[in-house]
Amino acid sequence: MKSVYEILRAKRDGKELSREEIAFLVAGVVSGEVPDYQAAAFLMAAVIRGLSTPEMAALTEAMRDSGDSWDLSDLAPVVDKHSTGGVGDKATLVLAPLVAAAGGRVGMMSGRGLGHTGGTLDKLAAIPGFRTDLDLPRVRRALTEVGAALFAQTDTVAPADRKLYALRDVTGTVESLGLIVASILSKKLASGTTGIVFDVKTGNGAFLKTVPESRALGRALVDTSRAAGREASGWITDMSRPLGRAVGNALEAEESILVLRNEGPPAVRELCLVLGADMLRFAEPALSEPDARRRLEEAFTSGKAAERFAKLVEFQGGDPRVVEDPSILPQPKSRIPAAAPRSGFVRSIQTEKMGFLSIDIGCGRRKREDDIDFAAGFLVEKTVGDRVEKGEPLAILCLGERPAPRPSFERELADLFEIGDEPAAPPALAIEKL
Amino acid sequence: MKSVYEILRAKRDGKELSREEIAFLVAGVVSGEVPDYQAAAFLMAAVIRGLSTPEMAALTEAMRDSGDSWDLSDLAPVVDKHSTGGVGDKATLVLAPLVAAAGGRVGMMSGRGLGHTGGTLDKLAAIPGFRTDLDLPRVRRALTEVGAALFAQTDTVAPADRKLYALRDVTGTVESLGLIVASILSKKLASGTTGIVFDVKTGNGAFLKTVPESRALGRALVDTSRAAGREASGWITDMSRPLGRAVGNALEAEESILVLRNEGPPAVRELCLVLGADMLRFAEPALSEPDARRRLEEAFTSGKAAERFAKLVEFQGGDPRVVEDPSILPQPKSRIPAAAPRSGFVRSIQTEKMGFLSIDIGCGRRKREDDIDFAAGFLVEKTVGDRVEKGEPLAILCLGERPAPRPSFERELADLFEIGDEPAAPPALAIEKL
Repeated sequence: MKSVYEILRAKRDGKELSREEIAFLVAGVVSGEVPDYQAAAFLMAAVIRGLSTPEMAALTEAMRDSGDSWDLSDLAPVVDKHSTGGVGDKATLVLAPLVAAAGGRVGMMSGRGLGHTGGTLDKLAAIPGFRTDLDLPRVRRALTEVGAALFAQTDTVAPADRKLYALRDVTGTVESLGLIVASILSKKLASGTTGIVFDVKTGNGAFLKTVPESRALGRALVDTSRAAGREASGWITDMSRPLGRAVGNALEAEESILVLRNEGPPAVRELCLVLGADMLRFAEPALSEPDARRRLEEAFTSGKAAERFAKLVEFQGGDPRVVEDPSILPQPKSRIPAAAPRSGFVRSIQTEKMGFLSIDIGCGRRKREDDIDFAAGFLVEKTVGDRVEKGEPLAILCLGERPAPRPSFERELADLFEIGDEPAAPPALAIEKL
Repeated sequence: MKSVYEILRAKRDGKELSREEIAFLVAGVVSGEVPDYQAAAFLMAAVIRGLSTPEMAALTEAMRDSGDSWDLSDLAPVVDKHSTGGVGDKATLVLAPLVAAAGGRVGMMSGRGLGHTGGTLDKLAAIPGFRTDLDLPRVRRALTEVGAALFAQTDTVAPADRKLYALRDVTGTVESLGLIVASILSKKLASGTTGIVFDVKTGNGAFLKTVPESRALGRALVDTSRAAGREASGWITDMSRPLGRAVGNALEAEESILVLRNEGPPAVRELCLVLGADMLRFAEPALSEPDARRRLEEAFTSGKAAERFAKLVEFQGGDPRVVEDPSILPQPKSRIPAAAPRSGFVRSIQTEKMGFLSIDIGCGRRKREDDIDFAAGFLVEKTVGDRVEKGEPLAILCLGERPAPRPSFERELADLFEIGDEPAAPPALAIEKL
């Protein structure tokens, strides 16, 4: 077995590390026997040289095994979805009750917002009383009784990831396919789910702006999950515009409920049908794609999906009346239209920038300890391809407890919309199945 | 100006760093503002991506400027020689008085042994009373009164190199042309010499075993020195066999004196003429190569070189009688022949291994705090190309205070000589001028 020194030299020279070498390194990072400077040297070598699929799988598993790992095998199949993050992406809130209502068992470990993107945990926290700090017995009961559980990653999950991520953040080693994959999957796999659908967002509102980059990440996520013995599939989906109409925690919770009640924006519904069909087919392998889709549509139209959401909310401590009366969610104190400065067609929306503006009004945190203003957000009234008349609202700025951070903030919001004379074709939602 | 984070990302992506960025990084490493893990990430990126000549020059100067730098410009030209290290390489002891006797001014900052190679400071310390801990005023006086000074690198020279070297040693980032060049030159340039001849050893007793590797290092050393405003030249010389007959500190000091007295082995004399001619021509640019060589030969034959060594020894606190009577050097307690197991021709010598064996009997240190046994060493009786009869000594094992570390140690020594039936052509000493 190589020493840490020899492992560093091997990776430096572009050699492939063995499963044992990677496990030894990660264990040393967690125990402190491998000091930060050796870990940093490894990370830099890994970024420049890249990681092979076996190396990614080994790193993923070593990081997962650095902390608690849940065993849900007696409840299998338990399915999950992971999104790489976008603006207005509330699919998790819809998918968990939807797939459960259609017969699947859904366990989803979620995180807080990152960068310009919102976090599922914050959207759920907008529902009065809703708790995501479930322990394993509680998750098992939710899976059995409700068929779905939405829970937060605990501090005892993948401590190696936390340690390595903090180092990556200060050593210029964040942008690495292999390290990103291992970071995502070490936490995902710790939750014990048996099938995962990856939603790789692409476009100006995603972390990866182009299809080739997204394809590479998606393929690596799928391949590495499979190498770790899970079922996996992936979709590249559009994030060149916000998903649906609502951006902001309570607004997105409300929109999720509307979608579940079959009253929401078609884009959110369609994305949930695409991703949900894969999830359902992991739960029932015999099901064809059209049959899976039909089953999900039925859950929407029959009211079973909405009903299941009420059950899920109740089980997790929230007020289930929210499904019938979303007005019990935190409500904006003011709604200010962001008017179109001219007539024409919406040709593009600066989506990432919209995410950052949403953080400015309290939808997300700049620092870990910041508070969220749950009522704050935007309602996107016009999207790419739409016709707009001068003075019509492109979006509505919804303020909660906090005032707008800058004067004429609604103008900043309106300026994110590029308006031209020619109609623009709206991009496809599901761009590519991996 | 980029932040450390941005500098790390730039180097990671193979971009060239500016002089200011490198200076900022090195200053941060020394002050502690750049923590070890960021320094380690930089080193790994530098090893994998390589350093350009301007980057090497910038790193060299930033490391030099991290500590004391001597100004000898009023005494210029002051010339120096640097060897990349070998077995039996005592050229510094000969060159300093030789070139001084021929009219040059020689200031040489030397180090201790490294790996399997001996260190000049230890060879000098074998001379009773000799001190190398000279401060700047003392070095200036030596240069003026003797024309030569041999002194140790102090702790205040290039602290950035010490800090980075310690990190390289534990992060698998030692083997980097750029970092090696900067490490060597940061110390060399701090001593204030104005012209440097590089002796890049190549072969099985050198750190670099092949001519192409040695050529790359030599070129980088010469180019980077010139970029830093010094005169520089370089030679690739043979280290596929020990240089001369003596290996070990007092034995090498004695052999140096014999060479200075025109009685030593031709190989040592020839190497000193080759390197010395370049040194002398830095001191006197008008001098042709043959004239420089003639001047040095004259210094040998006239006795002036030996005389100058006596002066140098006396000035540095040593007993100058050593030049006439080398027996005042520490003497071996026993001399054990390492006999040839068969008759034939010496075809090769495992030179690096001989270096390590010499450390086993006390010629060098395994750890920093180890003591040296000055009397210990080997006398190489047969070299590559020589005819030997079975039972004749290939070498003589000289033991000082310590016993041989293993039984039949002289057999291990004899086993380093490959003996074959066909004569082998001895390799050229000066392989290539850079």
